[in-house]
Amino acid sequence: MDFKEELKQYQNLVNGELAKYVETKKCPEEMLNRSMEYSLMAGGKRLRPILVIATYQIFKKDIQECIPFAVAIEMVHNFSLVHDDLPGIDNDGFRHGKPTNHKQFNEATAILAGDGLLNYAYRVISKNLEDSNKEDLSKKIKTFQEFSEAVDKMIRGEFVDTEVEGKQISEETLEYIHKNKTGALLTLCVRMGAILAEAPQEDLERLTSYAEKIGLAFQIKDDILSEEGDEKVLGKPVGNDKILEKCTYVSKYGLSGAKEKLENLTKEAIEELQIYHEKAEFLVELAKYIKERNK
Amino acid sequence: MDFKEELKQYQNLVNGELAKYVETKKCPEEMLNRSMEYSLMAGGKRLRPILVIATYQIFKKDIQECIPFAVAIEMVHNFSLVHDDLPGIDNDGFRHGKPTNHKQFNEATAILAGDGLLNYAYRVISKNLEDSNKEDLSKKIKTFQEFSEAVDKMIRGEFVDTEVEGKQISEETLEYIHKNKTGALLTLCVRMGAILAEAPQEDLERLTSYAEKIGLAFQIKDDILSEEGDEKVLGKPVGNDKILEKCTYVSKYGLSGAKEKLENLTKEAIEELQIYHEKAEFLVELAKYIKERNK
Repeated sequence: MDFKEELKQYQNLVNGELAKYVETKKCPEEMLNRSMEYSLMAGGKRLRPILVIATYQIFKKDIQECIPFAVAIEMVHNFSLVHDDLPGIDNDGFRHGKPTNHKQFNEATAILAGDGLLNYAYRVISKNLEDSNKEDLSKKIKTFQEFSEAVDKMIRGEFVDTEVEGKQISEETLEYIHKNKTGALLTLCVRMGAILAEAPQEDLERLTSYAEKIGLAFQIKDDILSEEGDEKVLGKPVGNDKILEKCTYVSKYGLSGAKEKLENLTKEAIEELQIYHEKAEFLVELAKYIKERNK
Repeated sequence: MDFKEELKQYQNLVNGELAKYVETKKCPEEMLNRSMEYSLMAGGKRLRPILVIATYQIFKKDIQECIPFAVAIEMVHNFSLVHDDLPGIDNDGFRHGKPTNHKQFNEATAILAGDGLLNYAYRVISKNLEDSNKEDLSKKIKTFQEFSEAVDKMIRGEFVDTEVEGKQISEETLEYIHKNKTGALLTLCVRMGAILAEAPQEDLERLTSYAEKIGLAFQIKDDILSEEGDEKVLGKPVGNDKILEKCTYVSKYGLSGAKEKLENLTKEAIEELQIYHEKAEFLVELAKYIKERNK
């Protein structure tokens, strides 16, 4: 199948699963539910849940087992977007070409919707543990543990990112921010897929390396798009990083240096997957897609 | 032992356990850690973890098993205070007589410290599950599930509370806010203690009823203190509810009506504990303390 077609199928699958968790009943906190739904269903790329599922599929066919964790990670991702956009943090007005949560609703609602989405992820995981067979508990608990640690890293990375805004920072700090703010969650996704599919330790390590490389590639591409992307396609302003003197991979390595690094990382990531042949074809294409996407 | 002395001992125990989770190492996100510590160690009453432990002790002596859940619930409680105080929600400047988190640090830090505290609770739980004996997993997973659901209720209650500020609300809505915003977490604490100590179903129900009654009593007492408490003792302004036309149990029933309701609830809560005789003595005294406290 064509990659774009397969990606679309995965996205539809994830959107369908997420929709099952949207709460629509009449209740006093109806607007909070609408606010959570607004961000969760705003039409992101669903990269994180897709990574969970596609990694799982290298080893096992029936994906039902990994779905709740795929859903949970997308909830966490959206929680982080809602809070990062808040006036007290990045003060962003648009996301995916739509008003951000606090613009569409209000600040109190956005804070609590973010809290609600983070906590919802753990509701999903706890329900899954409660309904689980005894023999599957051990790997699911390991997954839960890695999940909570990766979310912690993400929050810390976001904090440091906020701290250094407008300041000159070292390459070390840039690396630190990326590894924690974006990298930790992407790596987690691949690891969750592998752990739940009971992949052997050496596969877990190989796939972790793949994830770290595409995670860094993803960030570098983001920085490149922020510099020279198409505002209309991206759905957000371009060139702001330069105005705000943000330290990015583009400001560190220059545009061509960043592109070279992106090229190399993508190549290395794909090499990690050679051993899986056609079973990892989608993940190979995904690495290329991350490099080539225009939004 | 004198109740006040016993309460102090419990508080010291909880503070000692919480201190073990404070992260002090040098790192780029050091200020985030200090911000989380600032709120976590600000010297609350520790009512929630104490409820977990004291309920557990009705059935079992060695409390080690319930400590991580007691710690986790105090983290959640503090997360909710940090976010509720934010400019975008209640915009409060003081808590426990000290500047609120966003006043002491800044808004971005307070948002992320709150997120970090909520997530930390789940890190503690997941670590505990991972280190657990197989035979204890089932009750711990049940506890985790009730935990995540109660936190969800708390967030929803807070949302509705924010929504109705300055509006006339029905008794139903007042009840809804209390049950979710404050009641759910207090009830959870008692239930966690009972579930972890493997209390039989009828005890679980009896103790749930005790928890619901003291939870409501706690809220009514809070409203009474907000109306006629001592600002210096409380560490926050008195009389604001009236000025803001907040709907409270005092505005609904009048001061004497609220006091009567408080009296009855306390009596009923204590009656639920008769069957445990001296084993529940602390919880009996705690119910009286909630009624009589001046802060």
